[in-house]
Amino acid sequence: MTIKMQPIGFIKNNRTEIEDDNWGEVISEIELTPEIITESLAGIEDFSHLEIIFYMDQVALEKAIAQHRHPRNNTKLPKLGTFAQRHKNRPNTIGLTTVNLIERKERIIYVKGLDAIDGTPVLDIKPVMIEFLPKGKIVQPDWTKEIMKSYW
Amino acid sequence: MTIKMQPIGFIKNNRTEIEDDNWGEVISEIELTPEIITESLAGIEDFSHLEIIFYMDQVALEKAIAQHRHPRNNTKLPKLGTFAQRHKNRPNTIGLTTVNLIERKERIIYVKGLDAIDGTPVLDIKPVMIEFLPKGKIVQPDWTKEIMKSYW
Repeated sequence: MTIKMQPIGFIKNNRTEIEDDNWGEVISEIELTPEIITESLAGIEDFSHLEIIFYMDQVALEKAIAQHRHPRNNTKLPKLGTFAQRHKNRPNTIGLTTVNLIERKERIIYVKGLDAIDGTPVLDIKPVMIEFLPKGKIVQPDWTKEIMKSYW
Repeated sequence: MTIKMQPIGFIKNNRTEIEDDNWGEVISEIELTPEIITESLAGIEDFSHLEIIFYMDQVALEKAIAQHRHPRNNTKLPKLGTFAQRHKNRPNTIGLTTVNLIERKERIIYVKGLDAIDGTPVLDIKPVMIEFLPKGKIVQPDWTKEIMKSYW
């Protein structure tokens, strides 16, 4: 089964290198592709946050697989499966990040804190609703703190 | 630009009809496809919540477009763009839901609150980390309350 998708927009920002950290202050713009009607963004400005689903097209094909590895190759951390991590080297190389919406101007939205490099295709944009946030107490293992300490 | 993806798993549950409401108590299992190694789930059991990215393959092609419509065709609600809604009729028909992880058994995970029907292909699974939750106060328009009142 092969699933086919088309980008609905592209990301523009000043990050051209694939780097692990300091994404919090990055401002990105996402412009719709010509096939997408402008009205598909109508009302988006009433939301403070969006989920951006993007396609990490710069990940090498041979790395886009399900793996079992130390996060960031740090052997002090436990060996973990791809689906227990948010690492980019994964099947389908889908990225997903919740960002702050700064402004919409016609066919462009400006967002803050999107951890994707310049030129990345966007697959979908969804508004954040409180009703879709995690239900109940969130538990996560200690190794995530090490990974996340300089990320934003 | 055409992006190609393969399912990494499939959803099994007792919901066979596409319905709008009462998804909160639904238990689903997601079994990995044969191409995906079992170890790709290693460590996932240390997380309480997961983000499931799935492909809504039952949406008719002619509906998988960017639109401008009343949510749930309710003309009392404002006319809104596709990307200001979480409706299934959207380009690429990607679904995204945060679920509670109940249990992992080898190549299967059991989750609660996944709003996808039986047989739906899964594209990715990501662990929820507090550091990836929305930053700052969440604002959303009033019409979302009407939509969400019986959803879970």
